[in-house]
Amino acid sequence: MINELRGMPVVNAMKEKFTDMIGELNNKNITPKLAVVRVGEREDDIAYENGIIKRFAAVNAEVEVTVLPLEVSQDVLEATIFALNTDDSVHGIILFRPLPKHLSIEPIKTLINPDKDVDCMGRINTAFVFEGNKQGYPPCTPQAVIEILDFYNIELTGKKVTVVGRSLVTGKPLAMMLLERNATVTICHTKTQNLAGECKKADILIACAGSANMIGKDYTHLGQTVIDVGINMLDGKLCGDVDYNATAENVSAITPVPGGVGTVTTSVLLKHTVQNAMKMIL
Amino acid sequence: MINELRGMPVVNAMKEKFTDMIGELNNKNITPKLAVVRVGEREDDIAYENGIIKRFAAVNAEVEVTVLPLEVSQDVLEATIFALNTDDSVHGIILFRPLPKHLSIEPIKTLINPDKDVDCMGRINTAFVFEGNKQGYPPCTPQAVIEILDFYNIELTGKKVTVVGRSLVTGKPLAMMLLERNATVTICHTKTQNLAGECKKADILIACAGSANMIGKDYTHLGQTVIDVGINMLDGKLCGDVDYNATAENVSAITPVPGGVGTVTTSVLLKHTVQNAMKMIL
Repeated sequence: MINELRGMPVVNAMKEKFTDMIGELNNKNITPKLAVVRVGEREDDIAYENGIIKRFAAVNAEVEVTVLPLEVSQDVLEATIFALNTDDSVHGIILFRPLPKHLSIEPIKTLINPDKDVDCMGRINTAFVFEGNKQGYPPCTPQAVIEILDFYNIELTGKKVTVVGRSLVTGKPLAMMLLERNATVTICHTKTQNLAGECKKADILIACAGSANMIGKDYTHLGQTVIDVGINMLDGKLCGDVDYNATAENVSAITPVPGGVGTVTTSVLLKHTVQNAMKMIL
Repeated sequence: MINELRGMPVVNAMKEKFTDMIGELNNKNITPKLAVVRVGEREDDIAYENGIIKRFAAVNAEVEVTVLPLEVSQDVLEATIFALNTDDSVHGIILFRPLPKHLSIEPIKTLINPDKDVDCMGRINTAFVFEGNKQGYPPCTPQAVIEILDFYNIELTGKKVTVVGRSLVTGKPLAMMLLERNATVTICHTKTQNLAGECKKADILIACAGSANMIGKDYTHLGQTVIDVGINMLDGKLCGDVDYNATAENVSAITPVPGGVGTVTTSVLLKHTVQNAMKMIL
C-alpha cells in the first residue's frame, strides 16, 4: 500500500482557514487582491496563472493580471511594479520568472514593497528567510513543502533531512526553513559525490533539482518520507524528480507529481496575500 | 606530527595584497577608514577593538572609535550610525554586539549603508550572502574560514563539509559560502541526533557552536580537516569548540585556538574596508 501525501487535503484545510479570514476582511470592505505580472505568453506562466485565478476565485479573493508584451522595456516593467507597490487595493505581487533575457530581475529585488512581496522575490524577504524571522514571506514552493509536512504531522526536530537542489527559490530557503524546525539539514547538488548514499541516509528526502526521475530506488529506504518538488515534462507527460514507480513502494510516504507540492504552492500564494491584507485590519 | 593551519601566514599573505591597494589609495589622497562603534566597556569588545587598531595601523589604515555610554538611547545609537553612513571619509562601520538589552539591532539592519556594512549586519548584505551574490560583504568570521581554506589549498568542490552551529553570524552564512564553493554541506546543531556520527562522516569539519571542547576524538577521523571557530573561556584559558589535545593527532589538519580563525577575522574586516575604499577610485 503506497502512502501518498497528496496536496488536495492540505489545500482544503488551508482553504477553511482563509474562508474565515476573508469573511473578516469582507466585513471591513476589503477583498484580498493579488497582482500577477506576466511578460509574454509562456505556456507555463499561463497555466500557473489560470491555477491562481481558480484557487483565488474559490474563496472570493481577487486576481488582477497585468500582461506586458515580450519586448517590454526594463523601465516599463519597473514602473508596473512601482504602481502596484503604491496601489492600496493590491495586497500581493507576483512577477512570473524567468524573465526574457533583455530584462533584469536585480533592480526589482530592491524595488518591490516587502509587504507585498508574497513570493520572496526581494532582498528584504530573502534576508528574513535566512534570519529565520517570521516577519517575511518565504517563497511559495518551499513553504508548500512545510505545509505538507505539517499537515501530515511529519516531525522535523532532530530528523535528518537531505535537500537535493540549491536554488534560491527552493533549495536554499527550504534548508533555512527546515533548520528553523530543528532538522539536521544536508544540501546536495550536481557536484555532490555519492548522491545516492547521501539521499539514502535521510529520514526525509526532498528533491528539488529539476531533473526528471533522477531519484531512483537506491536513493531511498523503507521508513523514509519523500517529498518531490520537481515538475518536469518527459515524453509529453508531467513527472517529478523522483522516479515514482521505482520508489513509491520502497518508502514510508511520498508526494505524487502531479497532485503533490505543486498543488499546494498556489494556496501558499493565497495565504500570503490574505495575511498581508489582514495587516490592514489588525 | 600535527599539521596546524595557523592564522598568521594567512594574515601575512592578505597584508601583502592590502599594502599595494592602500598605496594606490594613498596616491589619490584616500586613507581607508573603519568606524568602530562600541557601547559600554565590555572586556571582549575592548580586546577586539585593540586587535583591530593594531592590525589596521600595520598597513596605515585608520580606525575611528566611537564609544557610547552603556545607557545610550536607541535614538542616539541610530543617529551615530546615520552620521557614519553619510561621512565620506568612513569606508566601513562595525558595531560591536551583543548590544545591551535596552537597545535593538533590528532598525540598524535596515539603516546601515550596505556599502559600509563590512561585517554583514544589515539585511541587504545578508540577502547577498544567501544569494551567493559577490557584491555583498559576508560576516568576517565565516569569511576568515574561507580565507584559511583557500590559503592552505583545501579543495571544497564535492567535499562533504559538516558545520556545527547555525548562528546568523557564522553557521548559516558559512553554509551558504561553502555551497557556493560546491561543497556538500550538512548543518548540525543542538537538536542534531548522533552529532559525533555526523561529524565523523565529514571530509571537513567546522565547529562554530560556541561550546568549549565539545568536539572530541570520536567526532573525527584521520584524513579530516578540522576548522575550529570557537573562542571560549575555560578555567581562565582560551579554548575552542574542539578538544585540541584529544583530536589534533587524529586528524589530517586542524586550526589552533588561539592563533587560528580568530586571528584572520580582523584581516577580513580590513579587507572589506579596503575593498569599499577601492570603489572610490575604480
